[in-house]
Amino acid sequence: MTTARRDTYTPETLLTVAVRVFNERGYDGTSMEHLSKAAGISKSSIYHHVAGKEELLRRAVSRALDGLFGILDEEHARVGHAAGRLEYVVRRMVEVLIAELPYVTLLLRVRGNTGTERWALERRREFDHRVAALLRAAAEEGDVRGDVEVRLATRLVFGMINSIVEWYRPDGRGTGERELADAVVQMVFGGLRAEA
Amino acid sequence: MTTARRDTYTPETLLTVAVRVFNERGYDGTSMEHLSKAAGISKSSIYHHVAGKEELLRRAVSRALDGLFGILDEEHARVGHAAGRLEYVVRRMVEVLIAELPYVTLLLRVRGNTGTERWALERRREFDHRVAALLRAAAEEGDVRGDVEVRLATRLVFGMINSIVEWYRPDGRGTGERELADAVVQMVFGGLRAEA
Repeated sequence: MTTARRDTYTPETLLTVAVRVFNERGYDGTSMEHLSKAAGISKSSIYHHVAGKEELLRRAVSRALDGLFGILDEEHARVGHAAGRLEYVVRRMVEVLIAELPYVTLLLRVRGNTGTERWALERRREFDHRVAALLRAAAEEGDVRGDVEVRLATRLVFGMINSIVEWYRPDGRGTGERELADAVVQMVFGGLRAEA
Repeated sequence: MTTARRDTYTPETLLTVAVRVFNERGYDGTSMEHLSKAAGISKSSIYHHVAGKEELLRRAVSRALDGLFGILDEEHARVGHAAGRLEYVVRRMVEVLIAELPYVTLLLRVRGNTGTERWALERRREFDHRVAALLRAAAEEGDVRGDVEVRLATRLVFGMINSIVEWYRPDGRGTGERELADAVVQMVFGGLRAEA
């Protein structure tokens, strides 16, 4: 017999549990039963807070997307030379990724089997396009190399940044948030080659 | 009633089917039943070729690992300045990734739940360390920047290269193999910044 915990959840705190389970089992592999067990409350208690697991997914990926799109509204992302704005956006992407690690991790693993997942993929593409446009502008202003195609360069830069979710653990020894953001900016703009 | 196809498989051709199914469903989510259906032959026919799904996984990730470790034995990876050897290895990693796309994709998704998976992760780490050593040597020779910590730089470079499996499709329009390898080498060593 399982003793259900008294339901003291809010939609917000329930989300924390759900995102952890989604990241562990995959969204497709998670049932309401799994969520109920992980939260220690009954399924009907969960339904008291949310319509179902898809609503939890939508709230979770919204949080990640709001964090990312929020960057583009910040002053340093809007004002000045494109290369400077791009550098600001790259640095802030790393910061948001770290600050919202489980939410961004979930966003990056979304596959597209449900309406919510397809919406999330669509929003991710929109964000990619906004950053690609910045990269294109920086290339036109002559501050970014013109020999790598913009869409490909964007993919490689996102590949580098997004891969951080695979190994970065905030409680891990070693790399701090600031050091990581600095390293990514240096690698994205200057590459490995030593300054001449 | 399902009509089983006559078993004309070799362990090699069966592997092609298995890797496709592993990449679609995840290794954990794949049963012998799934493999039997995808191959169109009975489970006992599969057992005629291999001991089970873990043997198929081992063969598949071995193929990816042999491709990657093979690079390090090539002459240009062994002879000359470390920076030149590193550049050669980065280019060849992209080429092997493309040539063995489904096998490398599977290798990169391995989690570590079985002995074979843990062995594969161990070998991946070994490969990472070999490349990190090359990067360290290049930094000591003054050809690679010293302001980004070697382990972190290696992770970011691997993050960029490995992310290619997420979007590259050999039949896709646009990016050719050569163009992609050039772009990765340029981004890894020179970054986005336009040459002064």
